[in-house]
Amino acid sequence: MNQPTEPKADKAGVRRHNLSLVLRTVHEAGETTRAAVAARVGLTRPAVSSLVEQLLDLGLLVESGKTFSGQAGRPGTVLKPADTGPAGLGVEINVDYVTVCVVDLTGTDRVRRTEHLDNRDAEAAEVLARAARVAADALDAAAERRLAPAGAGLALPGLVSGGTVRQAPNLGWNAVPAEALFGEALAALRPDTAGLPVASDNEANMAALAELWFGALGDLRTFLHLTGEIGVGGAIVVHGELLRGAHGFAGEIGHLVVDAEGPRCRCGSRGCLEQYAGQTALLAAADATDVPDLARRAGAGEPRPLAALADAGRMLGRAVSGAVNLLDPEAVVLGGIYPQLMPWLAPAVAEELATRVVSGLWDPDANRLRPASATTDASRGAAGLVLHDVLSDPLAYGRVPGA
Amino acid sequence: MNQPTEPKADKAGVRRHNLSLVLRTVHEAGETTRAAVAARVGLTRPAVSSLVEQLLDLGLLVESGKTFSGQAGRPGTVLKPADTGPAGLGVEINVDYVTVCVVDLTGTDRVRRTEHLDNRDAEAAEVLARAARVAADALDAAAERRLAPAGAGLALPGLVSGGTVRQAPNLGWNAVPAEALFGEALAALRPDTAGLPVASDNEANMAALAELWFGALGDLRTFLHLTGEIGVGGAIVVHGELLRGAHGFAGEIGHLVVDAEGPRCRCGSRGCLEQYAGQTALLAAADATDVPDLARRAGAGEPRPLAALADAGRMLGRAVSGAVNLLDPEAVVLGGIYPQLMPWLAPAVAEELATRVVSGLWDPDANRLRPASATTDASRGAAGLVLHDVLSDPLAYGRVPGA
Repeated sequence: MNQPTEPKADKAGVRRHNLSLVLRTVHEAGETTRAAVAARVGLTRPAVSSLVEQLLDLGLLVESGKTFSGQAGRPGTVLKPADTGPAGLGVEINVDYVTVCVVDLTGTDRVRRTEHLDNRDAEAAEVLARAARVAADALDAAAERRLAPAGAGLALPGLVSGGTVRQAPNLGWNAVPAEALFGEALAALRPDTAGLPVASDNEANMAALAELWFGALGDLRTFLHLTGEIGVGGAIVVHGELLRGAHGFAGEIGHLVVDAEGPRCRCGSRGCLEQYAGQTALLAAADATDVPDLARRAGAGEPRPLAALADAGRMLGRAVSGAVNLLDPEAVVLGGIYPQLMPWLAPAVAEELATRVVSGLWDPDANRLRPASATTDASRGAAGLVLHDVLSDPLAYGRVPGA
Repeated sequence: MNQPTEPKADKAGVRRHNLSLVLRTVHEAGETTRAAVAARVGLTRPAVSSLVEQLLDLGLLVESGKTFSGQAGRPGTVLKPADTGPAGLGVEINVDYVTVCVVDLTGTDRVRRTEHLDNRDAEAAEVLARAARVAADALDAAAERRLAPAGAGLALPGLVSGGTVRQAPNLGWNAVPAEALFGEALAALRPDTAGLPVASDNEANMAALAELWFGALGDLRTFLHLTGEIGVGGAIVVHGELLRGAHGFAGEIGHLVVDAEGPRCRCGSRGCLEQYAGQTALLAAADATDVPDLARRAGAGEPRPLAALADAGRMLGRAVSGAVNLLDPEAVVLGGIYPQLMPWLAPAVAEELATRVVSGLWDPDANRLRPASATTDASRGAAGLVLHDVLSDPLAYGRVPGA
């Protein structure tokens, strides 16, 4: 029976784990008390108080003057995550824009910058340097709010693994060491960021994380997330964790085959979903100039846009029902260009799901097909990845006490 | 940022964790020494000795008289998992047979019974009672070898969740509380098994676990496992864990659509993989009486069987390439009827994979398409599930010391 051995547990590890547990509990509650935390996590009140003191010293929690009576007994001083100190720097680089945000420990977007520019006309290193300039500018604004980056997350439109963009066809990138190039460009502009941890992933994964952490999914933690753009990106979240696969390439729902003899796809296959439900294919089929034009004309009842959307919805439904049969998610979230097209896409998708999903859990009344929240995007997911690291190991990220 | 809070860590929990760590390390090594265990898990030699003493007391480890020099220094007494005491009882109920095995802590199959009978002609309760009779008989044989069941695993041909078979179309079962019925029937025959933990799952999942724990995959821990039978079962293993989905229904690769307008499937959809690559469809297309007949005639170069196998392989390849694009596994394992048909199926499957997988990692030379091992089956996976529980928490399963 082959089983891996995970690391030993020891006393220092226990305290580290419990610091994280307390910080995450406060983070999740937004505002709470020591007593409520103790009741929630099952540690004694003195143990929680000691952990809270350390988190206050680290600058990761703050006390507010007010007291309130939580669900767990006596009134107590209110604890909140700090809105100064370590923050997540989120950077999305896409075909025609760069977006940067800085998110504090409370989960609030504190600084946001978007720059529209065509990233196809420059070398990868130059594009990453552009992104670093936008990020440096955002960090200046963040510093005025007493926020300093604990790390950076990079959302990129391609296959990403081990810090490198293996390929990003829409940018023309191959084997680009994006994390290193971005980190160096940022450190050249702001020497204080030298050595800042940088974590990269593809934009579809980052958008799914944003939906998980900052979206409107509530307790729902196993879902499939599609991002309709020029391609169709996909990400799989299982029990609150991104499923990345063996090499980091999981989630390529845009290349599920919906018609084996269909048009050739840039991936080399034929009849991939994105040949029907990607933005380019959809606009061409509808003879529309852009997505707002498509939505407007569908809303006005024009037959060709309506037919194009119904066809795309059917193809989406085929691919999604296959993914649902494989993965058994609680919901499917449609992001990118899809939320604004839901009125015309959703009925066809829902019909395919109702017919093709074996478990029988996907009748249209089950409300399992949802538009992505308007407030989440890949840059926010990238920032969230940094916050996730801080919450998972507060000791590694808090300030040196007394400094 | 919505994050769940996992249980607190404490001292008793740490020891429990480390007992498991040591037991699993010995289990994995087969034979080892205290010093080698200490080196492997990173605990001190005295800590490991104390943990080993407790595992010897619990009857889960034994010392052999011999000593040997492990990789980590001084010679020491050899430690092995006990081949008496707690064992896994694995039970597979399928359409026309029941198989039961008893597997000891070393991972060895010590007792095995198969009874061929048609389970479609009896009520579910009667079928489970038949299985309990075979199991009771196997447990009598196990007792003679001083093995007692620590639990039972049930592998069932259908959608299984929460101890219940939600539906098993090939058995005609709906909402059958299989765990409870089996447990009661077994306890009626052997009162000493009253209260024995019973865990059920579908046969495809159990077969994948058998491959993971007892197969020839080596270090490979992220794979897709297909079982070709009347239907086509599927299971997904990610980093050594079964991916069950939100409701336990993940892995239904047999219902991936390979031709949207194809023949109607018993699931209500059209053009599902099992309409092309399931045993019934394949034998009909080849005009063969059974699988050995098909293999024999394909081996003799008869055109119709060869064409049927190539067509089925192409459809398998389409579905599998979709699953690979979604899940990015290291390998795809073909079990059930497929291993004996590999020479004629594999080329078509491999060609589809090479063309349709986006990551480019699936060219035929990569050797990612494999037949299942001959020595694994669903009953062995079911028994493994019990062993897994014992290895994960030895304290809950060892004998009362001194008893």
